[in-house]
Amino acid sequence: MTTSIAIADPYHSRQGSFWECVEREDPVVWGKADGPLSTSKLDQYHENGFYFDQDLFSATESSELLAEANRLADLADPADAEVVVEPNNRAVRSVFRVHQKSDLFRSICCDPRIVKVARQFLGGDVYLHQTRVNFKPGFNGKEFFWHSDFETWHVEDGMPRMRAVSVSIALTENNEFNGPLMVVPGSHHWFVRCVGETPEKHFEQSLKKQEYGVPDQEALQMLVDKGGIQAPKGEAGSAIFFECNLMHGSSGNLSPYPRSNLFMVFNSVENAVQEPFGNRPPRPEFLAERDFTPLEG
Amino acid sequence: MTTSIAIADPYHSRQGSFWECVEREDPVVWGKADGPLSTSKLDQYHENGFYFDQDLFSATESSELLAEANRLADLADPADAEVVVEPNNRAVRSVFRVHQKSDLFRSICCDPRIVKVARQFLGGDVYLHQTRVNFKPGFNGKEFFWHSDFETWHVEDGMPRMRAVSVSIALTENNEFNGPLMVVPGSHHWFVRCVGETPEKHFEQSLKKQEYGVPDQEALQMLVDKGGIQAPKGEAGSAIFFECNLMHGSSGNLSPYPRSNLFMVFNSVENAVQEPFGNRPPRPEFLAERDFTPLEG
Repeated sequence: MTTSIAIADPYHSRQGSFWECVEREDPVVWGKADGPLSTSKLDQYHENGFYFDQDLFSATESSELLAEANRLADLADPADAEVVVEPNNRAVRSVFRVHQKSDLFRSICCDPRIVKVARQFLGGDVYLHQTRVNFKPGFNGKEFFWHSDFETWHVEDGMPRMRAVSVSIALTENNEFNGPLMVVPGSHHWFVRCVGETPEKHFEQSLKKQEYGVPDQEALQMLVDKGGIQAPKGEAGSAIFFECNLMHGSSGNLSPYPRSNLFMVFNSVENAVQEPFGNRPPRPEFLAERDFTPLEG
Repeated sequence: MTTSIAIADPYHSRQGSFWECVEREDPVVWGKADGPLSTSKLDQYHENGFYFDQDLFSATESSELLAEANRLADLADPADAEVVVEPNNRAVRSVFRVHQKSDLFRSICCDPRIVKVARQFLGGDVYLHQTRVNFKPGFNGKEFFWHSDFETWHVEDGMPRMRAVSVSIALTENNEFNGPLMVVPGSHHWFVRCVGETPEKHFEQSLKKQEYGVPDQEALQMLVDKGGIQAPKGEAGSAIFFECNLMHGSSGNLSPYPRSNLFMVFNSVENAVQEPFGNRPPRPEFLAERDFTPLEG
């Protein structure tokens, strides 16, 4: 990649020792108010960058999902690249590609209550960019620092534009004390270019603790001064849809209660990943699927 | 210390590989309802182990206290034993003995709004067992795991009985996102014996990250199942009084906003520290004062 092409990329990042905060060049809501969400909900999503559904799934459904998640964790082999363990011990932190490992999760990823909302946000057909279950064990679940997923997906995976949405479904209660997702409302309107170069095979470390693609503290301060911090909390079965460029993070879990969430990312079929925009080979497909078949549902 | 004496100590701890949770043998409230706190507030303190005052100090007073705390941090020498820096960088985390370093803090420690409450809880004259300012810097202020202060003060400092109270005064807002104090209501009714021996000069590490005197997870689970977790939050000037044996901890601070608190411990003059109940020499006096002069005020 030459410098001139790199600069033509509106979302270039990690190209040296400078950072900056620039306005987003893409729509937030690509679809129309033709359901399932009302215009006012779409407007809120546009403004804040997330949409919280207090009871997307019933208690029965979410307890089945939790049992399935725990089954996958029990089966997980820490030596498997698709399994991430805590940095300081061997507890399972994430299992990736759960839509391939479980019929139940495959069907949930195609559930109309989710896919139709994703399609509405993204304006048309969507495919699964990534799925995983995140486990944040009680007492020592580790924090995850602020970041924009899009920054990584663009630089390391080749996602061209901001036209993807993540859904995090609570499989256990997400409360004030077990490290719930924290978001910076409105931060998705800004793209924070990060300093540094991406090291080779960065993902092997970054899934545990990210060191590149970390936004500058001054940028974070500005975004939080503007929008504050919110941590939507809810029972198992609640879900948060959040825009791919929304700044988010989570604190550690000192409480005795695990925080387990099912996480899936929908990308527009018109935004399929290409070659990465950084100077590295693409990451493995469990992090950025390259099967762009539109989802039914 | 012989084994028979050790076993006669109702609060023996760190004597091998077993833990247990036993009932407290001391009163919680040693004084009477002769003011400043009402009977119902004393009853709450008895039951929960803490008392939260939303506005103990005015905004003007607390901004003066914050300025003084920041002045001490600026003057602090990281090589000074009375200064604790963050494990991963050199940011000042605590400055001890602030009642000796600052006239303002000395006078605040004798403020009747605090001392009279301490005297009421402890039933008579009190002296200063420890003072410090805790700084939890924005973005990377580290967590502190659950612990009972009394367990350490008994084993490492020789505090005989549970007859001390801590006061933590917010010098900056303490909110959901900057790692406020978390307490387990009711946990002070139980003493959790911890496993392990205390290593020599344990305090040099334990002020950064405690590895001994850490309660067993099963004990913590039981206490939280009984009493839940609460994190009293408030503006600068709010204060929490908490009993020396109350289980408490705090999460890290990922927010951009520092959490700075002034912390002081009052001990009953009838409970003055002796030889430590563990098999180690006493810790330095900045951690456990041995001047038992009763406080005026």
